[in-house]
Amino acid sequence: MEKFNKNTLDKRKPQHLYVQLFNLIRDIIIRGELKDHYKLPPIRSLAGRLEVNNSTVVNAYRLLEKEGYVYKKIGSGTFVSPRLEYDNEDVILEKYPAKDDLKLMDQGQIQIRKDMISFASATPTPDLFPVEAFKVLLNEVLDRDKGEVFGYQESQGYFPLRESLTKYLKNYNIETKPENVQIISGAQQGIDVIAKALVEYNDRVIVESPTYTGAIGTFRSRGAQIISIPILEDGIDIKKLEESVRVNKPKLIYLMPNFQNPTGYSYSLEKKKKILEIAKKYNVLIVEDDYLSDLVFNKKENGTLKSLDKDGLVIYIKSFSKIFMPGLRLGFLVMPPRVYHKILRAKHTSDISTSGLNQRVFDLYLRRDIWRDHIHHMEKIYKIRFEVMCKSISKYFSESGLEYNIPNGGLNFWFKLPEGLNSDDIYDKAVKKNVLIIPGNIFFPIVNENSYFRLSIAAVYPEQIEEGIRILANIIKGYNKEHIRDSYTPLL
Amino acid sequence: MEKFNKNTLDKRKPQHLYVQLFNLIRDIIIRGELKDHYKLPPIRSLAGRLEVNNSTVVNAYRLLEKEGYVYKKIGSGTFVSPRLEYDNEDVILEKYPAKDDLKLMDQGQIQIRKDMISFASATPTPDLFPVEAFKVLLNEVLDRDKGEVFGYQESQGYFPLRESLTKYLKNYNIETKPENVQIISGAQQGIDVIAKALVEYNDRVIVESPTYTGAIGTFRSRGAQIISIPILEDGIDIKKLEESVRVNKPKLIYLMPNFQNPTGYSYSLEKKKKILEIAKKYNVLIVEDDYLSDLVFNKKENGTLKSLDKDGLVIYIKSFSKIFMPGLRLGFLVMPPRVYHKILRAKHTSDISTSGLNQRVFDLYLRRDIWRDHIHHMEKIYKIRFEVMCKSISKYFSESGLEYNIPNGGLNFWFKLPEGLNSDDIYDKAVKKNVLIIPGNIFFPIVNENSYFRLSIAAVYPEQIEEGIRILANIIKGYNKEHIRDSYTPLL
Repeated sequence: MEKFNKNTLDKRKPQHLYVQLFNLIRDIIIRGELKDHYKLPPIRSLAGRLEVNNSTVVNAYRLLEKEGYVYKKIGSGTFVSPRLEYDNEDVILEKYPAKDDLKLMDQGQIQIRKDMISFASATPTPDLFPVEAFKVLLNEVLDRDKGEVFGYQESQGYFPLRESLTKYLKNYNIETKPENVQIISGAQQGIDVIAKALVEYNDRVIVESPTYTGAIGTFRSRGAQIISIPILEDGIDIKKLEESVRVNKPKLIYLMPNFQNPTGYSYSLEKKKKILEIAKKYNVLIVEDDYLSDLVFNKKENGTLKSLDKDGLVIYIKSFSKIFMPGLRLGFLVMPPRVYHKILRAKHTSDISTSGLNQRVFDLYLRRDIWRDHIHHMEKIYKIRFEVMCKSISKYFSESGLEYNIPNGGLNFWFKLPEGLNSDDIYDKAVKKNVLIIPGNIFFPIVNENSYFRLSIAAVYPEQIEEGIRILANIIKGYNKEHIRDSYTPLL
Repeated sequence: MEKFNKNTLDKRKPQHLYVQLFNLIRDIIIRGELKDHYKLPPIRSLAGRLEVNNSTVVNAYRLLEKEGYVYKKIGSGTFVSPRLEYDNEDVILEKYPAKDDLKLMDQGQIQIRKDMISFASATPTPDLFPVEAFKVLLNEVLDRDKGEVFGYQESQGYFPLRESLTKYLKNYNIETKPENVQIISGAQQGIDVIAKALVEYNDRVIVESPTYTGAIGTFRSRGAQIISIPILEDGIDIKKLEESVRVNKPKLIYLMPNFQNPTGYSYSLEKKKKILEIAKKYNVLIVEDDYLSDLVFNKKENGTLKSLDKDGLVIYIKSFSKIFMPGLRLGFLVMPPRVYHKILRAKHTSDISTSGLNQRVFDLYLRRDIWRDHIHHMEKIYKIRFEVMCKSISKYFSESGLEYNIPNGGLNFWFKLPEGLNSDDIYDKAVKKNVLIIPGNIFFPIVNENSYFRLSIAAVYPEQIEEGIRILANIIKGYNKEHIRDSYTPLL
């Protein structure tokens, strides 16, 4: 708090100054930076330093007291409330993530120091979320439905929401019915519920290599054998896929046909059709994780497998995390009728139902087409980042020896290092320069593959992108030289 | 809509008349009671019948149109929007639940006709939920935290909530730390996450017999072998438990030591201590599902196993569904440090994190002690129902031949039928008289046991209770006579 000055609070923000101050001090207390019983500065002196009215500080302190963060002693001041003891060595909050936590970071689960340039997080920054619009609808829902919002919720999901999703899906050429829609608490739960419903111990599941780490975790947890098939720039290796399906008779094939995570690759229409043929021929179900097909920047090439699925072979997973609000925990499945009962039972065993409030608010979002506006808004923001990213890559990476492919949309870029370079080392060097990347090995379920890394533009601002790419290019070039010098040394 | 009249809308309600009317018509449309393109009554005629201003009907119709339930044709009126076709035979909405759906009903998942007396549902009715208080806090949270509410959420749960839960638990003599609290999306997810973390294919799990059906479903889904030990009026059969632990070396013992579901039985303090000794001796973890220990009516005998657990052997599950809001999907675990990492990973694989909004609002509930007021409020309401239930049982059941035990608290009453009577038959006869019960067999994971049934007072109003019990008593007495007459016939 010693560093507080007239620029600490932002007078142009719509948020009240006392609320801003409350948040600041609360965060400092939560982070443990103030000792128990630490005396907060006197009201006048703090108000003076911040150049605000005394009442701003008075109100902030009052709120802190109300919330239990501080206590007052009449006549002597305001003090930080003693915290509970934290002697559990198991849990350490780190300033930046340990490499083991990268999987969590990929899913937005690690909070990152604000001065870092994070190409690691695949989750949008909170400033992009449409909070005010949400608030209006939320109050409307509470006034309309009252206690019903918190009472009984159908396991399959709030019927009107399933209905409005059905309409929304028509925009993406998916014809379905509310009866075939299952509401889920985010895409990860979608994978989990499908695995519970359909994958038994020792069953085989085919995935792309590399693929989404959360899916691997879930299939592993079911005791499944995971078989991975390489993905190429136009989609999974079809020959290897068919051979593997024939030999291994998998229960499921888990795919991300558009802007695949981590590669950003999209399947060609031919491959999409061929995959459905294979699924039909061998009677195997496909799980299509459509986590981001809405974000197209270069050309309209983002048809889903589900929109081509005439035989009821595709289970379609869609969440609203990436471009809406990750904290909402909301998504849905479109199911072929033959798996309906199993999926419903699995959802029920998982968490009975998804939060009724969030479902009802999101229903209004769709019915009133606010959703469409929001997508367009996000598209604009991300298109700027995408273009800055493309320019920076071409400016700094063209002589780096990196191999890469510019995707048509989505948020991920995938790079192959020149031979001899190791993504873990690049990670270590980048962290020291305040740049976060994700080394590729976490996306390979089976082999240890150290020559790739992923950059995501979800949580970097345009002005950070060029700087970050420049730093990475220098690391790679420097490393390259160093490495080449090192390897030549014995010969001198 | 033909039946609408001046009493259809309630002018004393705080809800706007046009919103009431909108809700009414919307529900009729959702239930499918109006055909596609059905013409709604003209504005003046409907306003006249309802004895309200024309503008009320105009506004209701406008809202219906905005929401897509109806469409307008200029000059000819307002019509019901065509619905999607529902030709999927798999899904039939029933007026009352099929017996197969009783497990769902137990968890509040089946909506029941309003004129039924439902002793089946174990979930409170929506009119008991503190919606207004919730709304105030919800808006406060959104103003305070803005986008953060919907952004990154820690998998383990919102730290301030884990902190306030730690304080709250002190009231129940449970000493823990925020680091050992894991937020979950309801108790069912708690069981699921624990099973994922600790139960592998073919592992053994010990449960009480009878027990909660949702737990059986989860353990089965993990491929576990389920071993059930009878529960007696003072708790599980300790001898059989110890013998089974010794022989079977289970991974977990799943127990509800207070107001067990479905029996309502509570463990004696001696048994609680003995169970902890057994757990220590054989180094086996106990899962304590404390779904309702807060609701005590007769005497203070509701200590948890967790409060006695000195060796870190108990994983404690608590949800806020039963006495707070089932639709909120919120609960928590208290974990021994040794399972912390596994649990966190399992939670992450399940749904990444629990809704951030609900967590933040609930944190304020606890910090401001609104929670305590709400518990007291619910206690009062349920105490009345509990007492009416006890009186009705003693008035009508005393000569029925039923065996039962009046619990000290909770919401469940458990009855054993006289020999020769079958709970499925009683269920069928009761449904015909508009009374719903749950036949006991769904609570027995292994044997087919037809001589028990459960009555819950969660969703019955006091005035319904006596009537419902009277009807059941008549059915049982009549059945008894019929049955005895039948079985004597050959002798005459």
